[in-house]
Amino acid sequence: MDEYEIISLLTQAAGSLPPDYSAIGDDVAWMKTVPGRLILKADMLVGRTDIPPGMTWRQAGRKALAMCVSDFASKGVAPRAFMLSLGIPGKTRPTEVRSMVRGFQDGMEEWGVRLIGGDTNESDDLIIDCIMTGFAKHIVERGGARPGDYVVVTGDFGTVSAGLKILLENAKAGAAFRRLSLRSVYLPEPRLKLGVALRSLFSSAMDSSDGLAICLHALASASGVGISVDVLPHAAGLEEFAAANGYKSEELILYGGEEYEIVGTIPARRLERAERVASSMGAELKAIGKVTESGSVEMRNGTPVDRKGWIHLS
Amino acid sequence: MDEYEIISLLTQAAGSLPPDYSAIGDDVAWMKTVPGRLILKADMLVGRTDIPPGMTWRQAGRKALAMCVSDFASKGVAPRAFMLSLGIPGKTRPTEVRSMVRGFQDGMEEWGVRLIGGDTNESDDLIIDCIMTGFAKHIVERGGARPGDYVVVTGDFGTVSAGLKILLENAKAGAAFRRLSLRSVYLPEPRLKLGVALRSLFSSAMDSSDGLAICLHALASASGVGISVDVLPHAAGLEEFAAANGYKSEELILYGGEEYEIVGTIPARRLERAERVASSMGAELKAIGKVTESGSVEMRNGTPVDRKGWIHLS
Repeated sequence: MDEYEIISLLTQAAGSLPPDYSAIGDDVAWMKTVPGRLILKADMLVGRTDIPPGMTWRQAGRKALAMCVSDFASKGVAPRAFMLSLGIPGKTRPTEVRSMVRGFQDGMEEWGVRLIGGDTNESDDLIIDCIMTGFAKHIVERGGARPGDYVVVTGDFGTVSAGLKILLENAKAGAAFRRLSLRSVYLPEPRLKLGVALRSLFSSAMDSSDGLAICLHALASASGVGISVDVLPHAAGLEEFAAANGYKSEELILYGGEEYEIVGTIPARRLERAERVASSMGAELKAIGKVTESGSVEMRNGTPVDRKGWIHLS
Repeated sequence: MDEYEIISLLTQAAGSLPPDYSAIGDDVAWMKTVPGRLILKADMLVGRTDIPPGMTWRQAGRKALAMCVSDFASKGVAPRAFMLSLGIPGKTRPTEVRSMVRGFQDGMEEWGVRLIGGDTNESDDLIIDCIMTGFAKHIVERGGARPGDYVVVTGDFGTVSAGLKILLENAKAGAAFRRLSLRSVYLPEPRLKLGVALRSLFSSAMDSSDGLAICLHALASASGVGISVDVLPHAAGLEEFAAANGYKSEELILYGGEEYEIVGTIPARRLERAERVASSMGAELKAIGKVTESGSVEMRNGTPVDRKGWIHLS
């Protein structure tokens, strides 16, 4: 399938667009502006590092969008439109390209975003650079955490790491935990609705795709504060999985990555309201610690949380 | 050099930004909006196909920006800011990364664009996806050509193809033509100022990065017209180069690519004014043919111009 055939497939997937958006097919894409801030995010999916064994082309296409949607979620902004810069290996079969495009459509339907343009190239490894855009008056930044705020997360950690160990290191798991872990690897669920609903309640937040420990350090550093962690949020079955395979559960929870949860801080007076908002949406919000004046990130017993996780090229 | 060291280098290169732009370092980038249209372009530079032998890392970094700037030029819009999604091979040396960043800075200075964010990854081949953005009330679209309009170009064609043949096929060339050709390969000069100055005079235009023939067909097809070509625009020395090496000069001119010129159409009553604007800027605008009602793209003698050029994955 050559460049023009792929573009034609993407143009069909984009469907007909309202007059505020450009159709695919000119040198540039455009959207009518909305007063406030233009929000932009680019996130590149690279086959070798971001597509685990067993992930389908359709799941890979959807995941490329999920990676960007999760960043928008953590900033409390609904994305509007996206572009795709693609690098497609020459040996890719037409059915694979079509599946990937079906995955883009899955994401478009799930998260309400429109495809308005992009660029198609040949490359050695699969590259899907998703560039997402939207508008907002205000966003939740990383630097707003204050001592006394609660540290909250929107879900469990460690499950994706466990899934990758099942796939890559042949780790053993019970049927239910295996299903949960592999689903978290193949079908990430960014917390878009929850993030948008909580926008005015967070004092700071970020997307957890590089791991929980990296998030805690990044929020603490951007805000000039410390964090004390009471609870390591994890799914039922994780500790048994870790013990049975010789892993440390806290390593899986803190230093994994790709969870696509929101890690944020909420002033104490707003916590109850935030929990009510989450529970009214059938979502969860777990308080896992407090913001401190110390400048360091540690467990309540004083054990330091290392600043490590997913770092490319390290 | 790991991901965080590269981001730190890019943050230094970005320098301090006015308050209308985000600094690098949060989950998303942002800019204050301007009423009208948001213009977006993504163009991916892939090492294997877009970096010819002898191109330095600094030139590659600058070229990645030039590819996007050229699309903005053809739409008559000055870009404002850009993001970079990078895929860096693990074996890349720190000096190479620093040279590439110096090339980004060259582009930032030449074209007045600000670096506001991006994404850094590890990949097998070098990937620089440049995502550029700006605002405009109106843009020059591909579909506005009308019968009787002049077809114009902002420079010569075939020189880049000749340069690539010198580099890849060991073609022979005189010193002056060799210098001209290699310069066009290593240091593309998108026609940003000229494109912006001519915005209200073009009836249609596009960037010529896929070759002159592809442009003529794309403009004709988007506008529902034909094109008759009188002149194949080329630099002195191209015909001698082609003859000496057994190439056909019209193949080099029509079916090459990467020229980064603007190919456009201008209504007859505005041509003289457009030529005056160009000459007042020390630039050139060559009328090479006319828009016709025929629906086909051909030379004045009736020889068809094929719809071929640079097509990825073909």
